[in-house]
This record gives sequence, structure tokens and C-alpha cells, in this order.
Amino acid sequence: MLEVLRRRLGAKVSTRDADLDLHSRDENYPVVRRPAAVVYAEHVDDVLQTLAWSAEYGVAVIPFGAGSSAEGHVVPLGGEVSLNLSRMNRVVSIQPPDFLAVVQPGLTRMGLNRAVRDHGLFFPVDPGADASLGGMAATNASGTTTVRYGGMRQNVAALQVALADGRLVALGRGVRKTSSGYDLKDLLIGSAGTLGVITELTVALHPTPSHVHTQRVFFSAVPDAVDAAYAIMGSALPVARLELVDALSMRAINRYLDRRYPEQPALFVELHASSAAAMAPEAAEIDEIVREHGARSVSAARDETDRQALWEARHQLYPAIRALYPHRTYLITDTAVPLAAVSEMVAYTGEQAARLRLDVVIAGHVADGNVHSIAALTEHDRERADEYSDALVERALALGGTSTGEHGIGLSKRKYLRAEHGEATDLMIAIKHLFDPRGLLNPGKVVGG
Amino acid sequence: MLEVLRRRLGAKVSTRDADLDLHSRDENYPVVRRPAAVVYAEHVDDVLQTLAWSAEYGVAVIPFGAGSSAEGHVVPLGGEVSLNLSRMNRVVSIQPPDFLAVVQPGLTRMGLNRAVRDHGLFFPVDPGADASLGGMAATNASGTTTVRYGGMRQNVAALQVALADGRLVALGRGVRKTSSGYDLKDLLIGSAGTLGVITELTVALHPTPSHVHTQRVFFSAVPDAVDAAYAIMGSALPVARLELVDALSMRAINRYLDRRYPEQPALFVELHASSAAAMAPEAAEIDEIVREHGARSVSAARDETDRQALWEARHQLYPAIRALYPHRTYLITDTAVPLAAVSEMVAYTGEQAARLRLDVVIAGHVADGNVHSIAALTEHDRERADEYSDALVERALALGGTSTGEHGIGLSKRKYLRAEHGEATDLMIAIKHLFDPRGLLNPGKVVGG
Repeated sequence: MLEVLRRRLGAKVSTRDADLDLHSRDENYPVVRRPAAVVYAEHVDDVLQTLAWSAEYGVAVIPFGAGSSAEGHVVPLGGEVSLNLSRMNRVVSIQPPDFLAVVQPGLTRMGLNRAVRDHGLFFPVDPGADASLGGMAATNASGTTTVRYGGMRQNVAALQVALADGRLVALGRGVRKTSSGYDLKDLLIGSAGTLGVITELTVALHPTPSHVHTQRVFFSAVPDAVDAAYAIMGSALPVARLELVDALSMRAINRYLDRRYPEQPALFVELHASSAAAMAPEAAEIDEIVREHGARSVSAARDETDRQALWEARHQLYPAIRALYPHRTYLITDTAVPLAAVSEMVAYTGEQAARLRLDVVIAGHVADGNVHSIAALTEHDRERADEYSDALVERALALGGTSTGEHGIGLSKRKYLRAEHGEATDLMIAIKHLFDPRGLLNPGKVVGG
Repeated sequence: MLEVLRRRLGAKVSTRDADLDLHSRDENYPVVRRPAAVVYAEHVDDVLQTLAWSAEYGVAVIPFGAGSSAEGHVVPLGGEVSLNLSRMNRVVSIQPPDFLAVVQPGLTRMGLNRAVRDHGLFFPVDPGADASLGGMAATNASGTTTVRYGGMRQNVAALQVALADGRLVALGRGVRKTSSGYDLKDLLIGSAGTLGVITELTVALHPTPSHVHTQRVFFSAVPDAVDAAYAIMGSALPVARLELVDALSMRAINRYLDRRYPEQPALFVELHASSAAAMAPEAAEIDEIVREHGARSVSAARDETDRQALWEARHQLYPAIRALYPHRTYLITDTAVPLAAVSEMVAYTGEQAARLRLDVVIAGHVADGNVHSIAALTEHDRERADEYSDALVERALALGGTSTGEHGIGLSKRKYLRAEHGEATDLMIAIKHLFDPRGLLNPGKVVGG
């Protein structure tokens, strides 16, 4: 079978050890398993050829972008071929007057931002990693700027998708709004390659805000920080980022990046405005709110370098934790809850970590109710880690929340799907069968089967 | 069959002339046709009973909210039963700390806003009419505030939906973000009752902006107004509304509301900010932009009454046109195009109206690229009206746009579905068959069949 694929696609098909290893894991999922081969697609025809071969020989395909997912999305169950899209990384067109760009799925978000910067535009979705845009759409990624700009569903206007049956379809339109037909574009976003392979995206660009104000605010306790964040959300201020990190996170960041931040719970707040005159009173309002909620120290980024350093610290949290607790495996929880429940969710997370004697740091996109924790696990913690994850998801669902705010179900959170969606899970399975009756697209992910 | 339904639901089933007439039309679709009966559901059980009866006897059901759709969504093909949800109009719960409310589908947007106002919150989606929230979700309504707050997909977090097979499912979660499973919530939004009946909605509320600034700006020609709107969009200012109306629209509004506005093309601009100090420089920036683009006169609403009057004028455009051209039928076009193409779309609309000798006014949510025109038709215009509509949609699609920005496909725009979506249309039809294999949910709408 592989010989046929190789005959058709030549050197784009690899079974070299290094390639198989690269496609055997994601950024966090504990299981490592090699695919049968890797196809490096360079053109949409390569994708269609691979899918045609897949249908012919019954070999399943896993779309692979930058491999930066965290829930096992790209990890083979056994026997699949990895379809690497990183060479399909062209900017097809930039349409500054439309605030749109058309891109190939292997382009990363940073690559896109470099390409559009000189037009005074930027692509706002920022999950931390320099993920591929196709992968970000496949997982419905979001991140630090979601509170202001939305996640991938809000920032992808249209998709070109290769289906299991070999058709290439256009979903959505390159417009800011449409009520035409069923919303298949958003059905594909977040489907993790289980319904089709994204071969092109039309993404929204935004005018670069001419004035950005960043504050870091330290508190003596996490509940104070959460309450302050909550008050900021009620203010209708133009908040573009609002991030919580706990004291242990700050310690990890200090050690990893050799910084001297206070090792206390912190909020990182960013405002975007169109003029300095508008910014000043808004920054003052933030200042007032955090002081009312017991802020211990407030400092504003003095310049762009300072601002970048501040966000770099937040983005480096995950490697910082790995450096603080080396030779561990890491469980990342990703629950999101209604806003008023964030405080309870954060407290419960701390309690469960203590009860189960796990090393846990807490950080969250608190403006969106999305609370992450990272548990650094020794080999003796495995069973208690499951208990920890289950407890957090159970509590999040009881609070009206979700098992995953932005990482996706992948493999690791499949066990929570039915608890969260009830009978709607059966509709999801039926849709999977409709799009992929033979189960050849990223099998086992999201809906299982 | 109807006797069985009446036995089960009693006086909630009506075949009175007045009720049949009320459910024989929408706000604009030219065909009037009575349903076989009307069920006034008072509880989700009534919906389930009606669907069970529908399945038993093979009689199709049309969900009906406020009847304010414009594309024939609620108009029977013949033989259907109308399922009126207007009595299911309770606010189930308001959760101010979560910025969420749970409501029944028959509640109108104004009813919701009255209920949440005292919490300092509001529901932003504003299509003009006091539509039901269930109907707004079913058509993926948006309107004047979309540029800032998004449409229904962005402002509905979760749905409870009754399916054709009698199951009651929960789609989505009451959180600001989730990547859990397939996005069935957004699939149902905009499906116009063809995939299920919405029986409950969890909607997003927003903090009422403490400072609102409204400007009306008159120009000597439409292209100047469009160019100014476009420049405003590139400014990253906190624009919450940005509306274009042409000179004939202003004349209609003046006559209908007895106003003395200049009868020139106008932009209505609204900014939302959290403080007066932030607002002033932003309003000044708008002022500068519009003057650079040839504004003839700029005036700011002096107070809330003035502001309401201004928006009332915009919202009353449709009845004003009806009053200006009485005893006509009205064709409303609803194309949306990429932003840079708005100017061309507006010009083309005017050209086609002139060529086909139709009485047409133009108004648009220009910030979203959504250009409406209303053609007031005599009985002699019917054929040329079809030509007009076809020409506009053809041009919009050629420009990368959509046949319907916010009204939905309904019956009147079905002929454009395949031109817009190509083979993805077949996926839509397959999904319709999956959810409603016997075609008992609002047959003929959106995907036909």
C-alpha cells in the first residue's frame, strides 16, 4: 500500500525514523506512537491524492500542522498515516481593504502576523505556541486575546476543506456576516481533522491598535486577583487581555527566564485603544479597580520591549513549569466555567491538588472563565492525576462549564464528552459517520469510533 | 389527525380564521398561505407533543416566533401546522455575575432588555423589529450593533432543542468559550427550524456602556459616505453602530415621522465607551475622519432622547418606505460583501435600479459590508424585480460576498444557495436528512426538499 502512495507522491512520503518520531507525539499527550508513514503535502492535490489513497486502501489519515496540540489530537492510535501540512504555508493573498487574508493551513500565526504587519493589521488569536492556522482552526484555538477579539470561530470567515470522499468544498464566505445556509464552517472548526482536512483558510485581520497599555498587578491571594478581574469585566473597558497566574507560576517564570518578579498571584491586564487620550482615563480606571480589590503593587509596561517581556513571561509558563519540575509528565486541565464561578473553580482546583498531593500551578484566561492548571506528575502520581482531572471536570460541568475551553477533546478528554453533551453526543457521532462513514479521518479523536 | 392533536393539547390548538391568517405570512414575503392549524405552545412538553403528533401523522411543523422574518421562513407550503412559541416567553433566569440569561424562545429582544436593564446589562443584537429570541437564533439575525457585539452566533452560548425524533438535546454550554465536541449550537443557529425547534436559549449579556456617543453625518453623495465609513473601520475606534442611508431613505423617514432631516445620504455612527474622558477624543477622531471625507454637516445627539429619536428613524425605515410607496410589494435585498467592495456594491445597486426602472432605496450596515436595498414594486415590476435581485446576488457572489447577510435563505433566496455554496450544498442537504429524515420540520426552507 505504502509503495502505491510513494509511487504517486514520491519523496513527499517518508518513513524515516526522524519523521516518524516527529509525528508520534504532540506537545503534551503522554502516549508516543509512530504513524505508518508521513506525507509532506506541498499542494492541495497532494492532500486529495493522500485521501484518495486512504479510501482505496482503508488506511486512516491524521492531519498534522505544527504538532503543538496538547490533548493527543495528532497522536496515532496505530497504523495511520500522518498528513503533514507544514509545507503548505503560503500566504495566498492579503486583502488589506477587506481586513482579510487567505492562507494555507501550514502557515503559523506568527508567520501570518509578520506578513500583514506592514499593512497596519494583525491576526489576534494567540494561543501562546506558534501553532499552524489550520491546526488552530481544527482545535478551535483561542488564548489570551479572546476576551476582545474572539477565538478561531470568530476569526475564520471561510474554509476550503478536503472531504473523505475526495470532494473539495468551500465553507463560509469571506465576509463579516452571512445567514446563508447551514453553518458548516463552524462545524468544521474544532472538529480536529475528524470531518475533513482544512486546505485553505480565509481569516479576519484587525487594525493594529495604535495604543496598547499593559499593567501587571500583584495580589496577596488568588481570590483577590480573581475578584479584581471580575470587576474589570463588568466595567465595559476595552480589555484585550486579562490573565491570572498564581504565585508558583511566577516562581517558575522567574527561575526559567531569570526574572525578579514578585512571587505572588498576578493579573496581567492589557487595554487596546485608538488614541493616547482615550487610553489614559481607561488605564486609570483599571488602576482604581485593582486597588479597590487589594492590589499590592501595580506597574505598567514602560514600552513595547517591556510589554513583550511581560507577555513572553506568560507564554513561557509551560516550559517554565517543565524546567521547575523536570523529568515529569504534565497534565493540563482546561475547564471553562461561567464567570461568577471562576473563583470557586480556582479554589476547588487548589483544594484538589492539596488533597491529592500533586504539584500544581494555576493560570487562566480569567476574562473568559477558562482556568488552566498544570499538574507536574511523577510516575507515582498517575492514578491520583486521573482522579484530579475527573474531579475538576465534574465540578466544572456541575457549575455549567465545559471540560475544555480551548484545547479540544482530542484523545485525553473523550471520556468527558457524553457527561458534557448528553444525547447531543449521538448527534455528533451521526455527523461523524455522515462525513466519514469508514472512519478514515483522524480516528478515535473527539467522538471516538 | 387534527382531532387527535386537539384531544392532546386542547384549546392550545386553533383553527380560527384570525389565527390561521396571522400565521399565513411574514413581514414581507409576497405569498400568503394558511397553515392547517396553529398550536400555541405554553411549555416544552407542548412542543414535544406537537412533534410526536407530527411524526405519527406525517404532518409537517413550522416553528413561529414573532413572524418578523422577511424571506418566507414561516410561510406554509401547504398543509403544515404552525407551532407558535410566543407564549413561551419567560425569562427562566438572569445570572448577572455570569453576564448570561436563560430565556424561552418566545421572549422578544426588547422584553429581555427590559428584564435585564436594572442589572446594568443589555442584550446587544438589534435587527430593528422586536423579534423573538428563538426566531432571531433560527435566522442568525444580527443588525445595527454587529460590528461591535456580533450577531446571534456570538451572543447565544447554548440552546435547548427539540428534535424531529422527539429527543430534547442541549447544545453548547453557558460559557464564553468551549472547544468541546462539534459545534452543533452554531449549526442550529441559522437553520430556520429545519433541523429542530429551539425551546430555550442561554444568551450573552453585556455591561451597558456608561457613555454612548451618536453622530449623524450628511454627505453630498453616497460614495463619500461609504468611503468615510470605511476609514472609520480602519481606525480601531470602539464603533458600535455604523449605518448608511441614502437620500431617498431620509426623505421617506422625514415624511413618515414628520422630521426635518436633510434629504442627503447620511451615516449614523455610534461609539460605546466606559468613560466620558475616553469618549471625547474618540468622538473628535470620528469627526476628523468624516470631515476629511467630505462631510457636509455633522451633528451629535445631545441626549438620550435625541439618540433614541435618531435610531428610531433608522429603525422605522421599512414602514417609512411602505408609507412613501403605498399599495406596493417590497423586495428587500440583503447581500453582504467584503468591505472594500461595499462602494462598488452600492453603486451597482443604484445602476441596476435605474436600468430596470425600479423605485429603490439603499440602506446598509456598512461596517459589516451588509447592503440592503428595498425595491417598492408595482404589479408591472415583478419580472424586472427578479432580474434586479438576481443581478445583485450574482454581483455580490462574484465579489466574494453572500446572498444574505442577516435575513436568511428562507424561501425567497433558495435559488441562490447552490450558486453560493457549490458542493457544500449537498452536505447541507445530507445534514437536513440526518436531522429530519421525513422532512417534517419547516419543509422547503433553506435547503428545500
